[in-house]
Amino acid sequence: MLYLVGLGLADEKDITVRGLEVVKTASRVYLEAYTSILLIEKEKLEAYYGRPVIVADRELVESGSDEILDNAKDVDVAFLVVGDPFGATTHTDLVLRARELGIPTKTIPNASIMSAIGCTGLQLYNFGQTVSMVFFTETWKPSSYYDRVKENANLGLHTLVLLDIKVKEQSLENMARGRKIYEPPRYMTVAQCASQMLETEEERKEGVYGPDSLAIGAARVGAPDQKLVAGTLKELTDVDMGRPLHSLVLLGKRAHDLEKDYIEQFAVNKETFNAAWKRGYGGN
Amino acid sequence: MLYLVGLGLADEKDITVRGLEVVKTASRVYLEAYTSILLIEKEKLEAYYGRPVIVADRELVESGSDEILDNAKDVDVAFLVVGDPFGATTHTDLVLRARELGIPTKTIPNASIMSAIGCTGLQLYNFGQTVSMVFFTETWKPSSYYDRVKENANLGLHTLVLLDIKVKEQSLENMARGRKIYEPPRYMTVAQCASQMLETEEERKEGVYGPDSLAIGAARVGAPDQKLVAGTLKELTDVDMGRPLHSLVLLGKRAHDLEKDYIEQFAVNKETFNAAWKRGYGGN
Repeated sequence: MLYLVGLGLADEKDITVRGLEVVKTASRVYLEAYTSILLIEKEKLEAYYGRPVIVADRELVESGSDEILDNAKDVDVAFLVVGDPFGATTHTDLVLRARELGIPTKTIPNASIMSAIGCTGLQLYNFGQTVSMVFFTETWKPSSYYDRVKENANLGLHTLVLLDIKVKEQSLENMARGRKIYEPPRYMTVAQCASQMLETEEERKEGVYGPDSLAIGAARVGAPDQKLVAGTLKELTDVDMGRPLHSLVLLGKRAHDLEKDYIEQFAVNKETFNAAWKRGYGGN
Repeated sequence: MLYLVGLGLADEKDITVRGLEVVKTASRVYLEAYTSILLIEKEKLEAYYGRPVIVADRELVESGSDEILDNAKDVDVAFLVVGDPFGATTHTDLVLRARELGIPTKTIPNASIMSAIGCTGLQLYNFGQTVSMVFFTETWKPSSYYDRVKENANLGLHTLVLLDIKVKEQSLENMARGRKIYEPPRYMTVAQCASQMLETEEERKEGVYGPDSLAIGAARVGAPDQKLVAGTLKELTDVDMGRPLHSLVLLGKRAHDLEKDYIEQFAVNKETFNAAWKRGYGGN
């Protein structure tokens, strides 16, 4: 049996009781480590589980799935995924390959940022499509996310923006020379995301949002040091939310007063927050 | 401290390790029991936790929050919520009241249907707003959900439809006579939801969907006997998905072939499924 086990969002105790039972008894335990991260080290997980955990990077999952699935008809293999196994990134590919090989699969759900973002006080019913923001480079600033945000904004809906993480990246030089030397991991911050969003608006000029648009930065959702900050996009370009992971929510115009009551407490600056709210939200 | 603890979707072992620690040590444990249900009895929860659980119905939460929050500045109170505490229904009200009283709060996230619905193989990125479907009566058939579905459909997005549950309902007669006698609980089925959706389309005639539109019925997501069925809305009006809880996803036109590959295996009838797909989905 192939088990896809959700780990939740923050640390080793966010696994479910059922998930922990699977991890403790499986023959092999893999940890998917390229679409998200837990806020703790692999070693801490291993100590908690009392057994070794094999880190599965993108290469292993995408081209080495035979290794992961080896013998899984007869023994249990646990494939651990931060958040929910079908959350921000789906692992339907691995499941489809397992099915082709006649290997039964089972999923153990867990918290995902897609619903845990409700901790902002924003109603999940009022969210449109979720989008992803990648790190811009000098020459590559993809703005397809902007079209999705525009669709949401036109309906007055909130947009959850998931922020890029880069792990096991090679520099161009190391890649060219075939050296398996990796850059330190990078995690996009709320400030970087807000800056990139304003850069795209500058470029596209379709008025989907602007420096005065309200947004909420969320860091380490579900962890003891979870942090939420509400402010204008301009304000958020200067905010320091601390260690990863970060997410951002762009507020939709359909936001109502109950949502405002809740998020106002996180405002960087209550005055600018209220001024921005009055100009464009809550049916004003 | 007031803890809002997510229980996950199916049974007693879907709680997280951290959540279980809170439940075991809290002074009082409440179970929110009117917006969703676990698939097991309260007694089974109590046996598993080794302690009593107080069922909190809507009345207690909405008008008796003082009782729940009593003394919570000094002792720990656990408020258990099926799914994620900020999932389908938020409990921001209770948190706001706790804050007014100077009571600190903490949330333990868990799986929610809003992300676990990814088990259908549909990409969560391709979902628009989530809507709720209530039981129609002879005289009350609210169709505001239809406007939201229309907004999603116009963008080609999937719509998750959460189905009504009725617990602790009084008949009109018993209510009039002030008798606290309650009707048996009712849980909307996929078939009922599909019928009501077609009824609304008949009424509104805006062509948002029709008998040949593709949808997926999901029952007991996350449980061992989870069941998924894909078919036209017409086909789903006849499907028997077994015991609650059920949800439904109306497929968006932007659905792509990878999603089709996955959901096709659940088709009631592969022939009609493929015919419907060819007519309207995947960029056709």
